[in-house]
Amino acid sequence: MKPFHTLTVIGIGLLGGSVGLAAKRRGLVDRVIGVARTEATLALARRRGCADETTSDPVSAVREADLVVLAAPVGALPGLLRQVAPSVRPEAVITDVASTKASLCRVADELLTGRVAFVGGHPMAGDDQTGVANAREELFTGCVWVLTPSAASTPEATARVERFAHQLGARVRRFDPTVHDRLVAATSHLPHVAAAALVHAVWHATDGDEAAADLAASGFRDTSRVAAASAALWDDIVVDNAAALLPALAALEREVRTIREAVSARDEQGIHDFLATAAEYRSRLLREGNG
Amino acid sequence: MKPFHTLTVIGIGLLGGSVGLAAKRRGLVDRVIGVARTEATLALARRRGCADETTSDPVSAVREADLVVLAAPVGALPGLLRQVAPSVRPEAVITDVASTKASLCRVADELLTGRVAFVGGHPMAGDDQTGVANAREELFTGCVWVLTPSAASTPEATARVERFAHQLGARVRRFDPTVHDRLVAATSHLPHVAAAALVHAVWHATDGDEAAADLAASGFRDTSRVAAASAALWDDIVVDNAAALLPALAALEREVRTIREAVSARDEQGIHDFLATAAEYRSRLLREGNG
Repeated sequence: MKPFHTLTVIGIGLLGGSVGLAAKRRGLVDRVIGVARTEATLALARRRGCADETTSDPVSAVREADLVVLAAPVGALPGLLRQVAPSVRPEAVITDVASTKASLCRVADELLTGRVAFVGGHPMAGDDQTGVANAREELFTGCVWVLTPSAASTPEATARVERFAHQLGARVRRFDPTVHDRLVAATSHLPHVAAAALVHAVWHATDGDEAAADLAASGFRDTSRVAAASAALWDDIVVDNAAALLPALAALEREVRTIREAVSARDEQGIHDFLATAAEYRSRLLREGNG
Repeated sequence: MKPFHTLTVIGIGLLGGSVGLAAKRRGLVDRVIGVARTEATLALARRRGCADETTSDPVSAVREADLVVLAAPVGALPGLLRQVAPSVRPEAVITDVASTKASLCRVADELLTGRVAFVGGHPMAGDDQTGVANAREELFTGCVWVLTPSAASTPEATARVERFAHQLGARVRRFDPTVHDRLVAATSHLPHVAAAALVHAVWHATDGDEAAADLAASGFRDTSRVAAASAALWDDIVVDNAAALLPALAALEREVRTIREAVSARDEQGIHDFLATAAEYRSRLLREGNG
C-alpha cells in the first residue's frame, strides 16, 4: 500500500511541483492534484508530470486528499489554511514547505488541534531557479528537510510526513518551530539580507563607475549571489521572520562597526584576529573540520 | 627574440609561481630565477617548473633580470623595492602582482623615476588555494590584469608588461592607481570583510547551537566563502588599502542599518524595494543584462 493515496499540492512552484513530481515518480502516491492560480502554470504542471489533475480552487482540491502540501508563499499560508481547513478529511495530514515555521504553526495549532493533523515542514532545497518549469524529481536528494511538530501534530502524522520526506531523498531533522526560525534567521535569512546590503554598499562606493565591472571578481559574485533571488519571495520571508531576524541584523551591524573601527585605527592585530576568527567560525558552522 | 631574456620572480606563491611557470611554458622568457625564503618552497618551485634557478637572496636574483616581478605580500613590497632597486639594471622593467596599488606606486615613483621603469600590476586571479603547489600555467587565462602606469613607468615599459600579461592569457586594463584602489576596495576588499562580519554575526546569533550546521544552507556557504581565505594575506591588503576601504565599510554599515530599520518597522514596501534594487544593482555591477 502506498503511503498516501491522494496528494494535493497547493502552489505549484519549484518546491510544490517537485514534491508532486517526485512523489508520483517514486510511487509514493496514486494521484496528485495540483492547485495554482493561472491556467498556464497548471498546464505546465500537468505536462511536466507534477500533477495528474489541476484546479485553481484549493477548497475542492483538498476534499479527497490524504496528504495536503501547502507550497504557496509564506505570507499566504495562514489565510489558505483557514480557507481549506473545513474541507480537509479528518484522517488527512497537512504539511507545508515554507521557510519560516513559528507563525504558521501557531495558526495551525489554534485552528486544527484535535481536528486535523498538521506538521510544519521546511525542505532546504535550492532557490536559484524558481517555478514549476524547474521542478525536478531529485530536488530533495540529500537536502535537510526540517519538520517542526507542534500541538496540532500527532506522533503518527509526524512519522508519516517524516517517512514521505525521507522517501523523497531528504534527511529529516526535527526542530521546535521557534528554534528553527531563530537558526534560519541567522544561517539563511541574514546571509540573504547581508548580500543585498553589500550590493547596495558596493553600488554606492563605486558611484556608478562602469569600470567597476572589470574589477568585480569572484569574491563579489559569490558573496552577493543570493541577492539575485526573487525579491517577491524573500520580502515575505523577511517580514514573517522579522522578530528572529532583528537580533541577527543587529549583530551584523555591530560586527561591521567593529571591523570598521579596527580598520580606521589601523589596528593590524585586531584586523588579523577578526579575519582569522571568521575563518575558524565558518569552518565550525559548516562542520568542515576540527577548527 | 623573446620578450624578456631573464625573469626574476620574488615571492614564489600561487601568483609568482604561476607567472614563472606560464612565462617559461609559453616561451616568453629564456630563464626564470625564483626567490623565496625557504628551501622547501624553492625546491618545489624548481620541481614544478616555476623557476629554473632559485635563491633566497633577492638582491643577487635581480642583477641579470630584464623583468622583475614582485610577488611577495603587499606589506613587504616597499621594503623589498628599496632593497633591490640599486641592483636592478637600468634597462630592466619592474612590475608587481599585489592587490593594492597606490601606496606601492608612490614608493616606486619616488625611488625609481628616471632610473628604472616600474609598472604596477594586479592580476585578478583566484585566491582559494594558495602556494606554489597550486601554481598553474592557465591561472591567468581570461582574468583581468590591471596595470597602473605612474611617474616611474615609461610608455615602452608599460607596453612591454602589457604584452607580457596578454601573452599569459589575461585581459589587460589600465587604471590610475588610486581609482583602482577605490574600486577594488568596494568590489573585492569590502566583500571579503563583509563575509567575515557575516560569519561573526551568524556565530553570535546561533550562540554555538550545533544544529545550526544542519540549517546552514548554500546561501551561507556562498555568501561567506571568501571568509575562509588566508587571514595573513588579507589583513595586509586591508591595512594597505584602509583609506579606500573605510568609506565602503561606512556605506555597508549604513545599508545594514537601513534594512534593519525597515525590518524593525515591518515596512514591507521598504524591504521589497531594498531587495529588488539590490538584485538590479548586482546585475548591473556584473554587466549581466539590461537590469
